Amino acid sequence: MGAPVKPAARVAARKQDVWSIVNEAAAASPKQPIVNMGQGFFGYNPPEFILKAAKSALDRVDCNQYSPTKGRPRLKKAIADAYSPLWGRQLNPETEVTITTGANEGMLSAFMGFIEEGDEVIIFEPFFDQYISNIEMPGGKIVYVPLHPPPKGATENTSASEWTIDFAELEAAITPRTKMIVINTPHNPVGKVFSREELLRIGNLCVKNNIIILSDEVYDRLFYTPFTRIATLSPEIERLTLTVGSAGKNFYATGWRVGWLIGPPDLITYAAAAHTRICYSSVSPLQEAAAVGFEEADANNFWENAKVEMKGKMDRFNEIWKELDLPFSDPEGGYFVLVNMKKVKVPADYPFPPQVADRPRDFKLSWFLIQEVGVAAIPPTEFYTDANAHIGEDWLRFAVCKEDEVLERAKERLRELKKYIEA
Amino acid sequence: MGAPVKPAARVAARKQDVWSIVNEAAAASPKQPIVNMGQGFFGYNPPEFILKAAKSALDRVDCNQYSPTKGRPRLKKAIADAYSPLWGRQLNPETEVTITTGANEGMLSAFMGFIEEGDEVIIFEPFFDQYISNIEMPGGKIVYVPLHPPPKGATENTSASEWTIDFAELEAAITPRTKMIVINTPHNPVGKVFSREELLRIGNLCVKNNIIILSDEVYDRLFYTPFTRIATLSPEIERLTLTVGSAGKNFYATGWRVGWLIGPPDLITYAAAAHTRICYSSVSPLQEAAAVGFEEADANNFWENAKVEMKGKMDRFNEIWKELDLPFSDPEGGYFVLVNMKKVKVPADYPFPPQVADRPRDFKLSWFLIQEVGVAAIPPTEFYTDANAHIGEDWLRFAVCKEDEVLERAKERLRELKKYIEA
Repeated sequence: MGAPVKPAARVAARKQDVWSIVNEAAAASPKQPIVNMGQGFFGYNPPEFILKAAKSALDRVDCNQYSPTKGRPRLKKAIADAYSPLWGRQLNPETEVTITTGANEGMLSAFMGFIEEGDEVIIFEPFFDQYISNIEMPGGKIVYVPLHPPPKGATENTSASEWTIDFAELEAAITPRTKMIVINTPHNPVGKVFSREELLRIGNLCVKNNIIILSDEVYDRLFYTPFTRIATLSPEIERLTLTVGSAGKNFYATGWRVGWLIGPPDLITYAAAAHTRICYSSVSPLQEAAAVGFEEADANNFWENAKVEMKGKMDRFNEIWKELDLPFSDPEGGYFVLVNMKKVKVPADYPFPPQVADRPRDFKLSWFLIQEVGVAAIPPTEFYTDANAHIGEDWLRFAVCKEDEVLERAKERLRELKKYIEA
Repeated sequence: MGAPVKPAARVAARKQDVWSIVNEAAAASPKQPIVNMGQGFFGYNPPEFILKAAKSALDRVDCNQYSPTKGRPRLKKAIADAYSPLWGRQLNPETEVTITTGANEGMLSAFMGFIEEGDEVIIFEPFFDQYISNIEMPGGKIVYVPLHPPPKGATENTSASEWTIDFAELEAAITPRTKMIVINTPHNPVGKVFSREELLRIGNLCVKNNIIILSDEVYDRLFYTPFTRIATLSPEIERLTLTVGSAGKNFYATGWRVGWLIGPPDLITYAAAAHTRICYSSVSPLQEAAAVGFEEADANNFWENAKVEMKGKMDRFNEIWKELDLPFSDPEGGYFVLVNMKKVKVPADYPFPPQVADRPRDFKLSWFLIQEVGVAAIPPTEFYTDANAHIGEDWLRFAVCKEDEVLERAKERLRELKKYIEA
């Protein structure tokens, strides 16, 4: 046999990712089946009118074959029509909307469309982990700016709005090489909805420095406080903004891989060109179903129901933290809640496997919860650089997009944490 | 307004691609609706047992949510089981198979997994056009080796087997930077099925030089002559081979975006890691349907029927060339046929739009056919470098994966070419 084949540096790092650590923890747990509140997939199906549309698309020849690389005209029109009232003007479906293979590949397409070797991209910490590889693939350099947690987050309930930007830090992060900034609102994992004032300050900094704004708004229909879309704040800001959306998040179907970008034609053109080179086209029958989702959402009062339902799940689940007297950061949007576990005492001699023993305290908390109470949550330091990991090490992220009976089972199990909590 | 935002070089080139030129030609044609034999999408639906499986998957919560990034266990097992008899040994579904978002993204994942700036990749001309951007995205340098056309291809019917490799040219193309070679069999657009002897010579050259073989076998169920899979030729060759497959091509559903890679664990690991960074996971309900496709294909005699049916379409359509006395290259596999149009005389003063006037003769032939007879075909010089475009400039590519009545309508229209053909 010849020499082993060397992988590219971009995939050579083999540090185990959080998802497989949590899956392995779940498999090793004596509490079977565990209640999985880790990954943000829905515990229930898309609404019936959308499933019906998907099935009906499967009967049509054109819905089973290649779609145009920029997406099916019907879906682009449905998105333009749905977002035009929110933008306050009519969006052009042919030049201002393009379809991608999920929001993830939409963001990669944006980076591939604009980032060259050595260009800098600013992201806030904590960040959604896929951003990192997506920025690094085209050769981008990531510049991190932390969201500062609520000062009293370890001792009392706080609001996700209390995670704040230090604008002096943000300005200091901008250099002549800064090409893009990534915003995520509602934010994963913090649950923060960036305020109009924050977005205006960010947007104006970008206008001043000609920085493209990639606004990840995949949770855009789930907000429990007024929600502002940065693209709508001024024509100067809009000119620089690509807004990312997701049918998977909007319609409870994270496995459908249909996303989109909305933005000015000269940004959309190049992001779409990158998308064509990455995936060619996106899944046809589910694009058609997503189009019907947008077309019929209002008639089904879907957006309002989705929001009320998710806020109900959030409040229902968070009762347990009041009961346990563990402080949480009340989210303003999305379906994740961060809970502060500083008061949970893990026995000093508790046996952790090597891949967990080496990581910050939140990884140990996550492993411990899975083994001892049978509830899986995500350690948020996975979404931090090493330098700032200390900010997240006492928190765990729970996804509440699950059936109510699952939330109740989780609460029942979490009551077993009592014996590990300091009075 | 600020300065315009500069796109990345990888997407900045704005030469119009063949697909949009053909679409524009179709829109401009007086012969409406035109008969589209250009792009290789199917004119009919996947078989009923697979559509049924897709609809049934849409009713299951887990089939609408994220799949594991490497693919659904059921699909990986179905693929391993389907290919094990063809490999002559049991494939391990967990380590030797990974699922991708269509074959296209599977190939990109392979390049992203192994190619670094300046690494060289050998491809044969003509090539499937997406290879180029997929190799260039991770910084690869493409080295072209032509397939030599049949010497008498302009004057008599030939076989796709007569498109040949000059092995001295292939060896000369190998350098110390050669990291990968791409093979495509059955070949698009030539229809050549590489012979066992050719594959063995290529494979042994790769073993000698430690070159990864990316074998694009998306038309692997459509061969009309014995078909050899290069991975099966020796353990040394297999160790270096990633084989690319496509549910879209196999099951008549080019819009489903489900593909896979089969290969040794140390190649699959890194290609799968790249896939995770590109698309995260692939479309869940259609992965499930593809699994059922493999599980039930034999009971439905699907593979044999697919082959007989496509060969029937090929022979039925090619009757027209005998009638017109235009020579064609009889394909050994796949659903494309190359027809030599040297004898078709386009009037010297025929008005072509600028984007066609600047391109080789086959672009003009394609435009002319669309306007004058209302049949769309693809100009193959799109699949050549400028230096070798002359090889393809008298040919057009027709896709026969259409309903029989469409093939008959195309033949009827093509009879109108007679008046432009020299006796």
